[in-house]
This record gives sequence, C-alpha cells and structure tokens, in this order.
Amino acid sequence: MRTVCVVGAGMSTWGEVWRKSFRQLFVDAALEAIEKSGVDHLESLYIGCMSGGLFVHQEHLGSLMADYLGMAGIPATRVESACASGGLAVRSAYIEVASGMSDIVMASGVEKMTDCHGDDASAALATAADQEYEVFHGATFPGLYAMMAHAHMAKYGTTRQMLTAISVKNHFNGSMNPVAQYPFKVKPETVESSVMIADPLRILDCSPITDGAAAVILTTEEIAKKLGKPYIKIIGSGAATDTIQLAQRADMTTIKAATLAADRALRMAGKTLKDVNFAEVHDCFTIAELVILESIGLYAPGKAGAAILAGETALDGKFPINTSGGLKSKGHPVGATGVAQVVEVYKQLTGQAEGGRQLKSRPKIGMTQNMGGSGGSSVVHIMEVA
Amino acid sequence: MRTVCVVGAGMSTWGEVWRKSFRQLFVDAALEAIEKSGVDHLESLYIGCMSGGLFVHQEHLGSLMADYLGMAGIPATRVESACASGGLAVRSAYIEVASGMSDIVMASGVEKMTDCHGDDASAALATAADQEYEVFHGATFPGLYAMMAHAHMAKYGTTRQMLTAISVKNHFNGSMNPVAQYPFKVKPETVESSVMIADPLRILDCSPITDGAAAVILTTEEIAKKLGKPYIKIIGSGAATDTIQLAQRADMTTIKAATLAADRALRMAGKTLKDVNFAEVHDCFTIAELVILESIGLYAPGKAGAAILAGETALDGKFPINTSGGLKSKGHPVGATGVAQVVEVYKQLTGQAEGGRQLKSRPKIGMTQNMGGSGGSSVVHIMEVA
Repeated sequence: MRTVCVVGAGMSTWGEVWRKSFRQLFVDAALEAIEKSGVDHLESLYIGCMSGGLFVHQEHLGSLMADYLGMAGIPATRVESACASGGLAVRSAYIEVASGMSDIVMASGVEKMTDCHGDDASAALATAADQEYEVFHGATFPGLYAMMAHAHMAKYGTTRQMLTAISVKNHFNGSMNPVAQYPFKVKPETVESSVMIADPLRILDCSPITDGAAAVILTTEEIAKKLGKPYIKIIGSGAATDTIQLAQRADMTTIKAATLAADRALRMAGKTLKDVNFAEVHDCFTIAELVILESIGLYAPGKAGAAILAGETALDGKFPINTSGGLKSKGHPVGATGVAQVVEVYKQLTGQAEGGRQLKSRPKIGMTQNMGGSGGSSVVHIMEVA
Repeated sequence: MRTVCVVGAGMSTWGEVWRKSFRQLFVDAALEAIEKSGVDHLESLYIGCMSGGLFVHQEHLGSLMADYLGMAGIPATRVESACASGGLAVRSAYIEVASGMSDIVMASGVEKMTDCHGDDASAALATAADQEYEVFHGATFPGLYAMMAHAHMAKYGTTRQMLTAISVKNHFNGSMNPVAQYPFKVKPETVESSVMIADPLRILDCSPITDGAAAVILTTEEIAKKLGKPYIKIIGSGAATDTIQLAQRADMTTIKAATLAADRALRMAGKTLKDVNFAEVHDCFTIAELVILESIGLYAPGKAGAAILAGETALDGKFPINTSGGLKSKGHPVGATGVAQVVEVYKQLTGQAEGGRQLKSRPKIGMTQNMGGSGGSSVVHIMEVA
C-alpha cells in the first residue's frame, strides 16, 4: 500500500445556515480544500452523509455534489455510518489512494439538519439506533447516552463536575475556532443550570444540530511534495462495528468499537498511544468524550474523569482533547464531523490552527476518533507530520 | 494492485416480501454467499443501499447488518449512489481487497421498498433526481425516462416494437430465474396494451418495486484457489458521474456516465467490447436498456433497436443481455441490483445459472453496468473466468 498524505483542508460555515443550500455547503468546503491544496483536478470523490434522504429529501449525493463542484464525470461515492460517515469517507479515500486506483481523491462530509424535511431532526438522527428494538420503544440518543452516564456514575463514581469540565473545556477551545457554531466560553454554573434533556444530561452536555461541510484532499507523498503546500501523512486507519443496540452490549460503560478501531489504527501505524500527542474525539455528549478516553486506552476505566478535572486534556494539558472545540462547541453536522476532525489535526500538525488554539507543544502525531450511534461503529485515524 | 476474485454469491427472495425484515433479507443473501464461498470469516463488509432512511426509517446500516450477521466488530461501510449503490459496493470492496487492506470482503446490497415509511416508494425514489430543479417541478423517474424515449424516437425513429422486444426478452430470461420477482413470459400484445405510466412507457416497460438483497465474496486469487470453490476474476472496474439533472445534458439520447464507466473498466481490463461475451445492464425502463447498449458502444447511436428486434441480445444471440431477467423481470430492489448483476455474471461464468438460462456458448468474459438516477452515475465491472 502506498503512503497517503493529507494536503489542504476546507470547511464551510457551520451553524444554522439558512442562506446556503445542502449542495452549496459542500461546494464551499470542497473549493477551499482544492484551493489550499493546489491540486488542479480530482480523480475521485467521497462524501460522508448520514441522511440526505431524511434531512433534505435528497439522495444520489455522488452525482449531485460532483456535478455542482463542476466535476461531473469523476467517480463519486457517498458513504454512511450514521455520525461516523465522515470518518469512513476519509478511510475510503485513504484506501483508494493507498491501492493505486487513484492519485488525488477528495474526502468530504456534509449534512444540512436545520431545515429537516418531514420529521424533526431528532427523529432523523434516531435512525442511527435500532429502529425495531430501540426507537420503536421511544429511545433517542440523549436517552441512550444518559443511560451510559448513569451506568458510569454508578460503577465508577463519575460526577456531574467531570461532565461539566468537558463542556467548559470544549467551549473554551471552540471560542478560538472561527468556524465554530457556538464560539463562546461557558461557565460551570451555566452548564449545571442549563435545561435538563435526559437526566443527567443537560443541554450544555449535548452537541447541537448543525448545517455544515468539511473536505480534505488525499494524495500520494510524491504529489504532496510537488504541490509545495503543507501536508501530513496518514499512518494508521482503523474501523470497527459493535452491536447497534446499546442493550445488547456486555458493558454500557465502555465503547468497544472505539477500542477496536483505535487498536487497529495504532497497530497499522506501528505506534502506541504514548506516541500520540493530541486527539479529536467524538463528544456528541460530554459523557461520550469521557467514555471514549477510557475506551481507547488513554485512561484506565473510571480514571478519565479525575484527569479531565485536573486539566490533563486541556489545550495546555499533557494530552489535549478536542482543540477544535469538539462537536460540543464547533457543531455536529453528523456526516461532516469525521472529516472536520481530520481538518483540525491537519491544521494543528501544520501549525495552521487559528484564533490562538494552535498547540504550543509542536505536536508530531495526532489522532481522530469518530463514532456512529451509541457506539455501533467507530473510525480512528493516526496522522503524523511529514 | 492485487488480483481480486469473486468466490460465492447469494440472493434473498426477491419480491413483495412481507414476512421478512430489512435486516433478514440482508442476512439471507449474506449467509448464502458465505456458505457457497466456504470462507470462515469476513474482514470487511460493504452494503449498497439507496435509502434505508426513507424506505424503512433505518440508517447506520454497517453496524446493523454486521451485527445481525453475527459479525459485529468488523469494519462495515454502507455506500450509496441511488440505484447504482450496489455497483459501488462491489467497486469499494474490490478496491479494499486490491489495496491489500483486507483479504476477504463481502460486497452486498439490500433494499426493502414495499413497506415504505412515510411517503410512497416513488417519492423516495425521486430523491435520486435533483430535488430542487427536477422533483420540485413534478418530475419522477418514469417521466424522465419517458422524455429520453421520446427524444430517442424523434432522433432515430426508435419504435414501440423495439421497447416491447426488450420487455419480452427479459421476461423470457427471468422466467428461468428462481429468485425473479416476476418469473413469467409476457407476450408483445400484453406489453403494448398494459397500462400507460408516462407516455410512451407502459407498466411492462418499467422495473418493479422490490424487496431483496444480494451478496458476493471478494478475495485474493491465492485464497480463492485454496477455498476450492468456483471463482472468477474482476479484471476491470469503472465508475463515473454526470449531471444529476437530465435537462443539463447536451444529449438526452445517450448516457455519458455509462460511456465513461465502460471505457474506464475496459481500459483497466485491457479489453474491448469485442472480447466481452455477455452483459447485465441497468434496464430500469426498457428505453434504458436500449440507450445503454448504444452508450457503452455495443451498437452505434440509433442502431440498438433493430439489433434487439433481430434477436442479437437474446439468450441465444451473439451478445446476450440480461440473462438473469434484468431489473424488469428479476426485480429492482435499488441498492441490491448492482450486486445481483455481479451474482448473475458469476453464475454464468462458473456454469451455475439455474432454470435453463445458462449460456450454451461457454462465455469467458462478462460485464455488469449499473446506473443511478437518470444516468447521473454509473458503475461497470468486467469479469473473466479464472
């Protein structure tokens, strides 16, 4: 397999974007990625999107997006794994370049969630859970993650303050990210007095409903060098599934798909977590970030909360998590999130993170962890400075 | 890139399948493919599906299907390109095996269309067209293909009898296919007196709404040999897009995405159409089959109709088309169709086609052509006996 590099990244506006269409969000991100990378053509396109059908009543996204990018003709593939769709788009593009099938491939993600067709956005999102055995009985994602939070609290004594610290940290980081949907700091007391969604999760424990897109260009090292733009290498890619139903798992306090995906990506990279300097992880809810840090092995079970309270995962901590602001502050257009995580790692490793959030520690290796449903799927990438 | 083989294929029941769920259809096809291939595990899974969201209100298909197959843990990716989703699932699995990332990968497709959630199936299918510029103004696929038929008739003198001959031929072939949804012959006068859907297309010009799944196992040649089961080689894979809107194309009587995809697949295989013995093509409407045969270069523009009337594409003709019965007779569960085309080529090339439809000519090379929307995307594979 050939070495694959990321050269160039783009993001649309993220937020409640009433004045731009689904296709325009994609084109905005794609054009920025093309411009920043310096490539003059694409050989293939991947688009991560959870539900064009339910959100905007539009499928056939490969044709639509290649067309509106002015590139009708190229192969284009939409991939879906609920909120891990973007991570899989990056992985699919990675495999295509690594295989030798194509030399210059765009991995992108897009979702337009705020003008949801038909049902409301929560009902559309619930299709990432088991329709027959979870959703039919009333489960939604805030409810499922609330159950994980209660289980973790019962087993390990995890506290409200630990969850609060995650929200406060991610909003602090996101306050420096110009594309973040909610680029402002929040105080602990604001988090803890915000409206209850599904006990113990409050609104400031939950990532928002977002319109947005992200894109990166993947290519060979030879071409990346020639382009003369900053680039990084993808050195590991891991993906995994687990039971779609939360109730069928042996332990609700860990996410096995994240464990498997991280192990596979690290093994492929020939690295351990000790070699990794920072990570973007899937904080769809504050409890998710905490559970993921334990699931990928950064902390032992039950130990992440105290470390977070001690500031270990802060921007100036020993292992910064979600320097972009994470899903919580930056926003969570579900199909785009996994690609945006790679955008952040690309920016951090090439010294391009804006607004004062650039890591001072000159990181060499970063990780992304993207997740679908209540942990039914996960995708992890390890990237290294070139 | 490594040589990739198809070893083992499976199909669920196709039709209006009220007693089996979405997931069960997939599992039926997948288990048959696993059993026939003799593999004892999968390393990755691809699922072609157009709209789990709109048809059955279920996304996150990688997690769901890997889980219900008893294989939670493996990477699983759902790919979508409207009715070409299945072809792209095969292509994605092909790239993954060719790259060296995985050795044993399942490519599958599934759609459950007859118990459509919310809108009717036609509205769900219309999301493969441009929602803002086609569907909003009332266009549906029978209407779009009817326009192509009128344009072809006006330009080349294509007749009702030519379209009729396609329906009659495909139903004849399908009458010998045990999994076909409509496994019966039809008379020309029945086609021509059937109810009008969108002039000039009648109901017997249209492929049906179908529940069904299909699956194939892709692996390396080394493993295929060891398994000791019949296998074939994939020697070419081509994919392409075109404008999603029919109205934006220079010529409505040809499908450029099919031309591009076929050219790319043949070039990769180092073959020309003269080397190919038979093909499964995307006859979502009778006119589609006619236009595709011209678009891929089997006949000059305007010449396919007369050749079809002369029996050249019949089971005993010089270039048999849709020996399976095609979408018209076999059925068209949109995400599964592209995989089922590969199932038919696998069966024909390994001498396993049932019911008397096995080609007597001992074919050596077969082609599949799968298509999304009104030709906004197309995927072509070339396969050869091992």
